[in-house]
Amino acid sequence: MEKPSIPQGTRDFGPAQVARRQHIFGVIRRTFETFGYAPLETPTLENLSVLTGKYGDEGDQLLFKVLNSGNFLVKERRGETTPLVTPEDLEAGPKVVLPKIAEKGLRYDLTVPFARYVAMNRGTLTFPFRRYQMQPVWRADRPQRGRYREFWQCDADVVGTTSLLCEAEIVLMMAQVFNGLGLDDFTIKINHRGVLRNIYQALGGEGQETDLFVAIDKLDKIGEDGVRKELLEKGFAEQTIGILFALLSVEGDYAEKLQRLLAGFVTAGVEPDGPRPTVETDDDDLDLTYYRGLQELAEVRDLLQASGFRQFDRLEFDPTLARGLSYYTGCIFEVKINNVAMGSVSGGGRYDNLTGSFGLPGVSGVGFSFGVDRIYDCLESLDLFTDTSETPTRVLLTHFDPASGRAALPLLAELRAAGIPAELYPDAGKLQKQFKYADAKGIPLVLILGPEELAAGVAKIKILKTGEEKALPLSEVVTALTV
Amino acid sequence: MEKPSIPQGTRDFGPAQVARRQHIFGVIRRTFETFGYAPLETPTLENLSVLTGKYGDEGDQLLFKVLNSGNFLVKERRGETTPLVTPEDLEAGPKVVLPKIAEKGLRYDLTVPFARYVAMNRGTLTFPFRRYQMQPVWRADRPQRGRYREFWQCDADVVGTTSLLCEAEIVLMMAQVFNGLGLDDFTIKINHRGVLRNIYQALGGEGQETDLFVAIDKLDKIGEDGVRKELLEKGFAEQTIGILFALLSVEGDYAEKLQRLLAGFVTAGVEPDGPRPTVETDDDDLDLTYYRGLQELAEVRDLLQASGFRQFDRLEFDPTLARGLSYYTGCIFEVKINNVAMGSVSGGGRYDNLTGSFGLPGVSGVGFSFGVDRIYDCLESLDLFTDTSETPTRVLLTHFDPASGRAALPLLAELRAAGIPAELYPDAGKLQKQFKYADAKGIPLVLILGPEELAAGVAKIKILKTGEEKALPLSEVVTALTV
Repeated sequence: MEKPSIPQGTRDFGPAQVARRQHIFGVIRRTFETFGYAPLETPTLENLSVLTGKYGDEGDQLLFKVLNSGNFLVKERRGETTPLVTPEDLEAGPKVVLPKIAEKGLRYDLTVPFARYVAMNRGTLTFPFRRYQMQPVWRADRPQRGRYREFWQCDADVVGTTSLLCEAEIVLMMAQVFNGLGLDDFTIKINHRGVLRNIYQALGGEGQETDLFVAIDKLDKIGEDGVRKELLEKGFAEQTIGILFALLSVEGDYAEKLQRLLAGFVTAGVEPDGPRPTVETDDDDLDLTYYRGLQELAEVRDLLQASGFRQFDRLEFDPTLARGLSYYTGCIFEVKINNVAMGSVSGGGRYDNLTGSFGLPGVSGVGFSFGVDRIYDCLESLDLFTDTSETPTRVLLTHFDPASGRAALPLLAELRAAGIPAELYPDAGKLQKQFKYADAKGIPLVLILGPEELAAGVAKIKILKTGEEKALPLSEVVTALTV
Repeated sequence: MEKPSIPQGTRDFGPAQVARRQHIFGVIRRTFETFGYAPLETPTLENLSVLTGKYGDEGDQLLFKVLNSGNFLVKERRGETTPLVTPEDLEAGPKVVLPKIAEKGLRYDLTVPFARYVAMNRGTLTFPFRRYQMQPVWRADRPQRGRYREFWQCDADVVGTTSLLCEAEIVLMMAQVFNGLGLDDFTIKINHRGVLRNIYQALGGEGQETDLFVAIDKLDKIGEDGVRKELLEKGFAEQTIGILFALLSVEGDYAEKLQRLLAGFVTAGVEPDGPRPTVETDDDDLDLTYYRGLQELAEVRDLLQASGFRQFDRLEFDPTLARGLSYYTGCIFEVKINNVAMGSVSGGGRYDNLTGSFGLPGVSGVGFSFGVDRIYDCLESLDLFTDTSETPTRVLLTHFDPASGRAALPLLAELRAAGIPAELYPDAGKLQKQFKYADAKGIPLVLILGPEELAAGVAKIKILKTGEEKALPLSEVVTALTV
């Protein structure tokens, strides 16, 4: 017989892992809900017409496609059967065959299904609409350490408002989740697509904005030299690249960087794209309003201050943050855990037209996502998981013989009624075996109810970790364990 | 542009639905955990070699198969590309083509993946192993009312023990879940495959056990006449069928039915298959031990009594309960909600060899399952869902102008820190619009923080349902809402 196995890049989650994952999901869920985000769940299967073309060519390749059910090779209609796939189709290759045999695929991310849901339910939804979604997604990527074919995303988005309060709240939620998980050495990086656009304008460029963003996005991986090389190849002038790095490397705190970029833009003669202040003053801050990107970043910071946010040392305005996705138009975010070697664990940004491809244009929104699998790996590397139990059971009742087993049942029922997860070892047998069971599962307490104890009307409680043991009257056991 | 849609038989769950479903999952999860069952999650994708042949021919048809990724039509090896699917394969049909282009499928139930997991991890698991699993499954069935292509199962199984305590605990868990959900007009039906076998022996039959079980299983749907007709066609004698119905229709309470079946078996000369009591007495109950099925059903009842179970009016020994699945060998269970027209909402039974097909024979276990989608429909028909909110938000803070919006931020942060889900309406605007928003989302409380209120240092709280309104000092708001 062949040994059973699971597909590459997928995982079984045993009891201890599920418990730890539920802890992560719980912190994220509570945070989302405290901020008024409502849960949404979409189907695992989506029509390929919804998914295809939304993730670029590479994404289309990575979609898992589901074979049509029944005889997928023929078309049956009014009792007549005609072949769907011909030998010529086989010659023509998978691009021709695929649409004939598969019309459904597996969810690839949570953003496209959300956009599809909003477009489909536009008539009944009340905007602004805040939703969160915590579900697995599938990508036929080459599996490797930290990259799975089935993995979980936790997204929150609000659509139907341009209020920057939403951006500020994303920072608050990110901080609340990582503080809540004990991953408190984090950095939230923030930037704005408008700032990147202004930087591009400062270089006097035209039409090659995307090339610039793509190159900047690689700074982390290929360094300044690599980016310079790439931009030279794309036809950027050496001098231009000099201005670029001067702007990208402005120093100082959040406010100082804003001011220095402002100065840089003004010097470079970048055309203001933000609203002019109605009152002209000498206040430097006001000048930020000439540039929408800088102004919005300043506003987000002010809103955070007004909300009582106190972790500005963990919030970094990083003009080099670009993020890959093409649909972002405003603020963009990314979070790293500093004391672990791991890519970003959360990210997001504002978009102006997510639902446009589903026939609902002009709905602005902002959203972000937590990568649960990476967060899990961070918590594990930092040894921040405290509970290693393989079971929710807190108390194991021992079982000597049918009589003592039966005598334990009322106490077992009482413990459970009090909400204390408890088990009676199901078979009578050696005490040693039962203790070994409790130990292997990580059950903290063992209740010994042998013939002697029953005769005396007591139960002996043993704390496995310390070996401590004490006898208690049967009637006091539940109270003792509840306190 | 084509209107976006979702595949037939799948569903989006909006905020109110997810909240209701989470309520159901929560009651089931807490029950499983209180009884010491530990969570397991298996991948959505399983190898077809694991799934195929486990659910009968019809099941194999209903499996969703996932197309191999990349160019699924060819095999690439050492730089050489050879066609995988030939024109002859197309002629031969889907049975020949399928294994060449798809090696993975979607989870069809939670039982086979559980058996696969136990077999794969036999070396590290501690037995008895109690696991629960709450995940969606997929079947390419024809969608209809109450039947979906993506639906949720909640299973709990314990393997590695033959203790009947596990059977008793299944009854306790079923009762706890339905009581907990307010579906308290339920009937838990119990039977035993051994009793059905004894009934078959009472008819003097041989080799047609399965035909009999299949026919009995249809009693509900086709009635006594239908079953009689089917059995006559299968070659059962008219007189035999008379004995059958006499045995199946024994009347009385649980204990009386056991005794009457015992008498029937003895009269019919059924060979005892249970252990003989070591001491011969006049106690009628002891005679049950001659027949394993009757004896185990009596034992389960005794264990329930000893556990303080008090709902024996909701537990029915039903000798006509057969259940479809072939792998059951001991007690079998099924639950119906009496005041709703709906099939069974839960069911299960004991099996002796679930993991055998994965190379691990002889592991006895017992398990059961809740059908969440049917339970949802029951709760909905009985109007038992009380919360109809489209959001977790409990308090909406209103927003008159940028100044009042900003002034509300500390209070908003305070509410959230106290764990009260709260939102500030993100844009300044007409109060009426903001109230409409709260109303449409089902947010119960609106906090009015206009210029007047701010000047007076108070917030006006309005309870939307009653229209009640009162002013509170800002510093007292959170305390007032927490109590």
